[in-house]
Amino acid sequence: MSSVTLADVEAAADRIAATDIVQRTPVERSRSLSDRCGADVRLKMEHLQRSGSFKTRGAYNAISLAVEGNASAEGDADDGPGIDRVVAASAGNHAQGVALAAADAGIDATIVMPESAPAAKIEATRGYGASVVLRGSAFPEAMSHARTLTDEPGVRFVHAFDDPDVVAGQGTLGLEVLEQVPEVDTVLVPVGGGGLAGGVATAVKARSPETRVVGVQTEGASTLSESLRAGELVTREEPDTIADGIATGGLSELTFGLLREHLDETVVISDDDVANAILLLLERAKQMIEGAGATAAAALLDDDAVDELGMAGETVVPLLCGGNIDVTTLKEVVTHALVDRHQLIELSVRIDDTPGTMGEIATLIGAERANIRTVRHERSRPDLPVGDADLVFEVETNGPAHVDRVLKAVRDAGYDAAWTTQEE
Amino acid sequence: MSSVTLADVEAAADRIAATDIVQRTPVERSRSLSDRCGADVRLKMEHLQRSGSFKTRGAYNAISLAVEGNASAEGDADDGPGIDRVVAASAGNHAQGVALAAADAGIDATIVMPESAPAAKIEATRGYGASVVLRGSAFPEAMSHARTLTDEPGVRFVHAFDDPDVVAGQGTLGLEVLEQVPEVDTVLVPVGGGGLAGGVATAVKARSPETRVVGVQTEGASTLSESLRAGELVTREEPDTIADGIATGGLSELTFGLLREHLDETVVISDDDVANAILLLLERAKQMIEGAGATAAAALLDDDAVDELGMAGETVVPLLCGGNIDVTTLKEVVTHALVDRHQLIELSVRIDDTPGTMGEIATLIGAERANIRTVRHERSRPDLPVGDADLVFEVETNGPAHVDRVLKAVRDAGYDAAWTTQEE
Repeated sequence: MSSVTLADVEAAADRIAATDIVQRTPVERSRSLSDRCGADVRLKMEHLQRSGSFKTRGAYNAISLAVEGNASAEGDADDGPGIDRVVAASAGNHAQGVALAAADAGIDATIVMPESAPAAKIEATRGYGASVVLRGSAFPEAMSHARTLTDEPGVRFVHAFDDPDVVAGQGTLGLEVLEQVPEVDTVLVPVGGGGLAGGVATAVKARSPETRVVGVQTEGASTLSESLRAGELVTREEPDTIADGIATGGLSELTFGLLREHLDETVVISDDDVANAILLLLERAKQMIEGAGATAAAALLDDDAVDELGMAGETVVPLLCGGNIDVTTLKEVVTHALVDRHQLIELSVRIDDTPGTMGEIATLIGAERANIRTVRHERSRPDLPVGDADLVFEVETNGPAHVDRVLKAVRDAGYDAAWTTQEE
Repeated sequence: MSSVTLADVEAAADRIAATDIVQRTPVERSRSLSDRCGADVRLKMEHLQRSGSFKTRGAYNAISLAVEGNASAEGDADDGPGIDRVVAASAGNHAQGVALAAADAGIDATIVMPESAPAAKIEATRGYGASVVLRGSAFPEAMSHARTLTDEPGVRFVHAFDDPDVVAGQGTLGLEVLEQVPEVDTVLVPVGGGGLAGGVATAVKARSPETRVVGVQTEGASTLSESLRAGELVTREEPDTIADGIATGGLSELTFGLLREHLDETVVISDDDVANAILLLLERAKQMIEGAGATAAAALLDDDAVDELGMAGETVVPLLCGGNIDVTTLKEVVTHALVDRHQLIELSVRIDDTPGTMGEIATLIGAERANIRTVRHERSRPDLPVGDADLVFEVETNGPAHVDRVLKAVRDAGYDAAWTTQEE
């Protein structure tokens, strides 16, 4: 089986340096994350890559190689490339990366997506000039269909991670980090199919053996640590994580082999940490990072992970590898934060269910400048006296102190009231 | 009345160049905004300023001047500064700017905020070492209280915009733009109290008269254009806009004078454009910009404004002046977008209100991989036949095509169903 070496990654870096389709993304120090975990945290801002993720690197490398290879085999550049079309299956960033790289190479791209793909992703992929085919209710069906499209001559199938040329392209992100932060002690890299982690670990460990490369997964998709424990590839039928970009269900033999050989450590974190990392990066760094992209940074919010890995005092670079968040996911993250900060609460008030009562209580809440979003009556609880009801207001506040003022105002008016946090 | 000149802004720029409290923020080209409006759009990324907004510039300048002035008057640097405390009133970014600048100068800061201030802003201000006093249910009371704290010796009151030193500091943003984008044709600047716009217009028009400076306000807080029409200061009791940072209720005589003299044009846009700009900058540029900060960019989404100002073909720099968005506001923006894109709909299904029906319909929806968020029964509509009910599902989808598939599945099972968008 073909594998990937530092030389492959270096060749990919040369190719990438010659195009403006792939950009050198900046590194920025994060004051808030550094303060939070005691390390010197430098964010690799790969979400600012064109198409919004690192996937452009691997796609560009694979497509360039296919075009170069065919042209030199024929020995006649005037004929143009021997391949004239690329095919890929993806519901996410790989679709956009392949579409952009194919457009740049002047060849057609057909991307197969499951019917459940977000409309925004479909539009973005079409926006780069690719043909999008919707097939199947889930990803495996889309993948099977894509494979059937590759039987024709002149077609190059580009797998998102089970492809040495793609992995070598992703590895260029690791070389860039070493050039931009030569003093880096630890690189934190999210692991989904293992294409990014495999390429980065291969390149970084060969070029700078003393730099540690740590793979990060979430609890709902921790196939790498399970595979390492089992000593063989372990897959999951239904990975479940807010970091949808790394919910691939498993690695490939290629990437598992690279990670087993080169990766120093793995760490598994919670979806809560990922949600908190997305929000911290939004509120403090002012950067929109998707779940998978925030996973590496989230490891710095997990005190156990920071301790176990001994990251305090180190220079740590989490790879913020993508920023194409789904708006529905963003809403979940934001709602979770509001509940967590008591800025969205449920205020339950016992009433005797007579006219005018709701108006009086709503007026009290409004006078404290808290915003009522919804209200409902609960009359079916077994402990309610006959004729009584609970009036449950969903209220927006400015935080805990404001909640106290609202509660006091309602109680001072003689009502029995209590509040709870609520999840939508 | 004292005013502000280019020399004042240049002196402020020299002061600011000597500290790392105020940073030179980057300028980035926006491919998506440029494509959208036909101008060459360069984003001035001032939301990456320390404390998350431009306010640090003015606060730093005013506080440095106060410290310098007193020291030189006394002629004895060993005594330290003659002022030992600054006071400000703010519910927003000015609070954080003053707190940070005061901490850097080694003097105390007292910030008065209304009790309704978001907990996150209070914490951020305290995080910079300032004392926060909560007073009054709205801003005017906080301001009155702050004024009473300035009667003591050694105290400098720092107004957010009615202060020449503050305005001169904000103007440094304009000089930076001219240095970074010398070919700029139009600078778009949001107008609240007019401190930023007044300083920027003063500096830009003096240094580069051919560069146009355009002030942008929202419909709910368009006090500048109203004042210009009236020929005198017009204020609003209750400005109402999603761009809370510019909902000041009006300018000051100082800033109105500067804007009347130096500003080339004004434009008034809608809150919808601001919400769309926040989302576009999040999804495409991957940057978190607050409402006021996104207001200038939002003018580029308003086709009438682009036409009237003739911006197509120009090099345009909108000032993204802050990124400290309130999470509640962010949730509103995101929800609005989901509704707008049909990713959050209400599906209403007529049923005969017998056991098992809800389960059957919910199963149909789930089989199409659409997520049900809430469900309610409507039995009180006058057009409902006796015994019938409407079952209203709030459903998350991937967009319009997905809505069609869900609707078809429910109708194919024999139900009378329809969908509508919904606002939370």
